[in-house]
Amino acid sequence: MTEGDPGHLLGLATALVAIPSLSHHEALLADAVETALRLCPWLEVVRVGDNLVARTALGRDQRVLIAGHLDTVPPSGGNDEPRVEDDVLHGLGAADMKGALAVFLHLAGTIPEPTVDVTWCFYACEEVEHRHNGLLRLWGERPDLLAGDAAILGEPTGGLVEAGCQGTLRVRLDLVGARAHTARPFTGRNAIHRLAPLLTAIAGFEGRRPVIDGCKYAEQLQAVSVEGGVAANVVPDRATLVLNHRFAPDRDAEAAEVALHALLDPFLEAEDTWERVDASAGAPPALDHPVLAGLVAATGTAPRAKVGWTDVATFWAHGIPAANFGPADPRLAHTSGEHVSAAELEAAAAVLGTLLTAPR
Amino acid sequence: MTEGDPGHLLGLATALVAIPSLSHHEALLADAVETALRLCPWLEVVRVGDNLVARTALGRDQRVLIAGHLDTVPPSGGNDEPRVEDDVLHGLGAADMKGALAVFLHLAGTIPEPTVDVTWCFYACEEVEHRHNGLLRLWGERPDLLAGDAAILGEPTGGLVEAGCQGTLRVRLDLVGARAHTARPFTGRNAIHRLAPLLTAIAGFEGRRPVIDGCKYAEQLQAVSVEGGVAANVVPDRATLVLNHRFAPDRDAEAAEVALHALLDPFLEAEDTWERVDASAGAPPALDHPVLAGLVAATGTAPRAKVGWTDVATFWAHGIPAANFGPADPRLAHTSGEHVSAAELEAAAAVLGTLLTAPR
Repeated sequence: MTEGDPGHLLGLATALVAIPSLSHHEALLADAVETALRLCPWLEVVRVGDNLVARTALGRDQRVLIAGHLDTVPPSGGNDEPRVEDDVLHGLGAADMKGALAVFLHLAGTIPEPTVDVTWCFYACEEVEHRHNGLLRLWGERPDLLAGDAAILGEPTGGLVEAGCQGTLRVRLDLVGARAHTARPFTGRNAIHRLAPLLTAIAGFEGRRPVIDGCKYAEQLQAVSVEGGVAANVVPDRATLVLNHRFAPDRDAEAAEVALHALLDPFLEAEDTWERVDASAGAPPALDHPVLAGLVAATGTAPRAKVGWTDVATFWAHGIPAANFGPADPRLAHTSGEHVSAAELEAAAAVLGTLLTAPR
Repeated sequence: MTEGDPGHLLGLATALVAIPSLSHHEALLADAVETALRLCPWLEVVRVGDNLVARTALGRDQRVLIAGHLDTVPPSGGNDEPRVEDDVLHGLGAADMKGALAVFLHLAGTIPEPTVDVTWCFYACEEVEHRHNGLLRLWGERPDLLAGDAAILGEPTGGLVEAGCQGTLRVRLDLVGARAHTARPFTGRNAIHRLAPLLTAIAGFEGRRPVIDGCKYAEQLQAVSVEGGVAANVVPDRATLVLNHRFAPDRDAEAAEVALHALLDPFLEAEDTWERVDASAGAPPALDHPVLAGLVAATGTAPRAKVGWTDVATFWAHGIPAANFGPADPRLAHTSGEHVSAAELEAAAAVLGTLLTAPR
């Protein structure tokens, strides 16, 4: 590792993208990260499953958790092989969030004496159902490893601080109908046709955009799954729709679900079912914490709201103020065109380096 | 078998309903029917797979094919066990079409010397993709067995003649979108949301109602399957809809598909795909044929159009004029509440008995 080499961070990120790490299959990447961390004698490294925690123990007044997830969503559009072009790395996870992991590994390996104690955390299964989340497993099995005063989560934020995060709610709607022969549909009722007004309302959803601590959130509603059908000549008596609602952190999941009911109940009937699949509260901005305020200052840019749910909410639920900060455009996450540039990686490394070495 | 016993036909139909015969699983029922037919020395019985043909060979001037399918759609609402109440048989296939099979078996066994030669045909796999259809297999392997001047198909018609049949067309539409994170859906495009205007148009479809030879047809359009979704937090980039269109016999499948395009193309885009899954032309009324005219006369009731596709079209495609005639309300087909009454069975037996024994 050579700190001065401008291609170093890009090369490191490329190496991380080259190791597939679909959720539940992070072992190879965890092996590589563990190997790199164990080269640093100033870090105490603990592995729990495919989750890694590496800590300094310098007796500083403050301890900062710096965390990133190892996993990616499934490949899309042939993006599973990394490709570097004009100092830009393209590939699955380049933005979400192996670029940040490269920055973290670089700083963990080059700052042996930060002015705050640092807990580096690389964890599994962030992109799937929350119950699988590696942070939850660490809190369950080794809560001592996650003690800290504030946390920074390396989700892609375009190099500025994205404060707090929105909550997420998933509901499953089962619409009923009545079977009939498709030549005589008037003797039954088509449950798939019943989706029409519901999908029209969902597609036309206009979310609230509350401003909290100067950060503007934006609520969303998306159908993420649809399924229905009995046979090729049968009017279907059932259709299922799964929705994902993203709500601002001035609401809890219960209030968000009440609002969703108000929108969709006009299109539902007594025999339909409404099931909450999962819900996770968001987290308010916590920029009054000195570490997070210092992070904002180091970026030199005004913070903005994080509209996606992130593990900032998991930290907040455990009493730890946290903010999102990472290289790459957050709008690229989960798209086939994910990428991150060398300049973005360098800038993120500079901001975190400044924060970790500032005189205190 | 006692012809004069009013409960006899109902008992026979109950016995047939008690033998499960889901499409592709007709062997047990075919065994039972074969056993019954082989008790009649005046019939030449041939079995091809689970298809049975039993023919008189009396040297009559005319030969009438009388056909019915052995299979049923899957059970629904616990209707897989027959139940008789107040001289009404309830259960899967009671209407579509084991009631007719009971009438056919009764007549085959009690009219050794009809005034026309009769070819009784009991066949498999009518309720599934047409390529599996037992009649097609018989025409492929033993076309000699299906020679005849006219055909009567025992689909449920409520005891009157339903003339011709409508065609059926299935198309599969794949709508495209662009993946994105559900917290930033504006960076992608939700393919499931794109279903909204399409389903609105389909649910609002008003089919033509042409009158042909005095019979009024009624076109229909139904979504029979929908599917889409990538992951719980991903804006889906694909949604699939399968439609079943029933069209009147004054149109062929090509013309029907052109009309469907005109309805749906406004909601489709260049990258979407439109695939014809299958198509079967209908059949015009052919009531000028003396056998079919005689059938109408025997019912004593005006004929009406058959709105569902039936194997009347298969006979017509092989040059044989055909009509639908069977006991039970056709609107019960493929519903959980299928039933047929003893009176309906007796009436159908009387009509066909009259036709088969009329002086010629």
